[in-house]
Amino acid sequence: MTTELIECVPNFSEGRDEAIITQIVAAITAIADVHVLDHSSDHDHNRTVVTVIGPPGAVIEAAFAGVRTAAQLIDLNAHSGVHPRIGAADVVPLIPLRDVSMETCVQLARDLGQRIAAELDLPVYLYENAALREDRRNLAEVRRHPYEKLKTSIQSDPACTPDYGPRHLGNAGAVAVGARGPLIAFNAYLDTDDVAIAQSIAVAVRESGGGLRYLKALGLLVDGQAQVSMNVIDYRQTGLYTILERVRAEAAKHGRTVTHTELVGLVPQAALLDAALAYLGLPSTVRDLTLERRIGAATGDFREVMFE
Amino acid sequence: MTTELIECVPNFSEGRDEAIITQIVAAITAIADVHVLDHSSDHDHNRTVVTVIGPPGAVIEAAFAGVRTAAQLIDLNAHSGVHPRIGAADVVPLIPLRDVSMETCVQLARDLGQRIAAELDLPVYLYENAALREDRRNLAEVRRHPYEKLKTSIQSDPACTPDYGPRHLGNAGAVAVGARGPLIAFNAYLDTDDVAIAQSIAVAVRESGGGLRYLKALGLLVDGQAQVSMNVIDYRQTGLYTILERVRAEAAKHGRTVTHTELVGLVPQAALLDAALAYLGLPSTVRDLTLERRIGAATGDFREVMFE
Repeated sequence: MTTELIECVPNFSEGRDEAIITQIVAAITAIADVHVLDHSSDHDHNRTVVTVIGPPGAVIEAAFAGVRTAAQLIDLNAHSGVHPRIGAADVVPLIPLRDVSMETCVQLARDLGQRIAAELDLPVYLYENAALREDRRNLAEVRRHPYEKLKTSIQSDPACTPDYGPRHLGNAGAVAVGARGPLIAFNAYLDTDDVAIAQSIAVAVRESGGGLRYLKALGLLVDGQAQVSMNVIDYRQTGLYTILERVRAEAAKHGRTVTHTELVGLVPQAALLDAALAYLGLPSTVRDLTLERRIGAATGDFREVMFE
Repeated sequence: MTTELIECVPNFSEGRDEAIITQIVAAITAIADVHVLDHSSDHDHNRTVVTVIGPPGAVIEAAFAGVRTAAQLIDLNAHSGVHPRIGAADVVPLIPLRDVSMETCVQLARDLGQRIAAELDLPVYLYENAALREDRRNLAEVRRHPYEKLKTSIQSDPACTPDYGPRHLGNAGAVAVGARGPLIAFNAYLDTDDVAIAQSIAVAVRESGGGLRYLKALGLLVDGQAQVSMNVIDYRQTGLYTILERVRAEAAKHGRTVTHTELVGLVPQAALLDAALAYLGLPSTVRDLTLERRIGAATGDFREVMFE
């Protein structure tokens, strides 16, 4: 059974106006063969994140429809929110899921970027694996100048010249289009309200502080509890078990413990299975010993066994 | 999508003679619509365990074919092995997997037992959920008298009167037919060759010693390393995380640690996912947040996402 499947998780700069959000999601859902698995809007961030999957061609059509609708309906000059953003359709990452290579996703992202520039007349920046310039691999670099600042720097600063499209910003701003692996948003809560401890742990565990590779981290105060807020860039290289053990060790240095953790959004099952095997001290070959894998291989039905 | 699926894991008292093993497995495989997921033979135990799945009717036919073939080919009077056994087809447990209730499996087990008694003229004992007598719920009780002893006690001891079939043993012995949930064989290795420590830990953690419910445990020496050998009777009630934490705590009392663990046979994926969530301190609702579940619900394809 071969079914090419990719995911797109576009972020739109509107999290408050229900009418606009509904129209954007409707434009995406209208494309045949795609499935919107999830969409969530954040009022403070004034931002909506949509998770859509399907065959590559259909997902690209859906992403384009979402970008076009957002560009028509969202005016960045009237937008406010705490999240950094450069455009109405702010970031459009493509993620290979099944029977599609990263190389294919890179090409799809570049083609999509060119089409957005050509048909919608929007500046496009390519990031992560799709980046054409090494300094744009990191999305944070692409977003270093938010919309208001980018309006001038896109014309004056060669570092801000878009990969495709016009060298000026309209009301819909610019679009960052990329290709990457699945990202996991993983937060660990501490038994303290001292955000400085969370910040100290974040610096110690994240890659930029010399900690774990493929890990980004910030210290935050969430509902009165200190939280180490993390993004796992490649869970296959740095797994959830390794991360939690390190956070716990750093917390112990402050005399603190992790009370619980949190996953935001959808997580690949393998990230959880890998954590179980690492915790249990089992070899990764055990992943082939689940009843589900064997039943699936024999019958083609890979649904989870739910006895009784 | 509704597909009734059950599992049967018959144990046959032959683990050495390839010709006999092959014929038993062939008799099972010959039934349409069943899949033999695994079969393994142990020389010391002189025993073969077959894992077969499929729709209930087909699995019952396969189980019956296996029992008939084993009864024809295996002579218990010529059998030796370290594992306790009462018959050629020693135990035949039925396990509900999908869209089948335990009650249905209980009825299937009783019907199968009656058929084995009527058509093959073998004594049948019903155990675990299929038991007709409370003292036969525990398989260990049913197997308390091995074949040689049962030859006389089946006639003299009312506690050994079979549920179905003749009150005497032929060369093929008797059959224990049962219905139960999935069982997990889970072993923890210690950093010592002192089997007494493994035995002490086993007594402390198992249900019969006042430890964890639904857990059986023995202390063994395996390849020079002390091993706590465990059977998890209901992993949903007592999960792998709870068990390993308890074993580690008991080992610490002896100044020992667990070096690694081992799963024998196939494990329901949920047992691993539950261990991950327990370790990570995540609520069980996270099980609904895997990409695979959402993709499966949207597309009907529940295969694991294998990006790149």
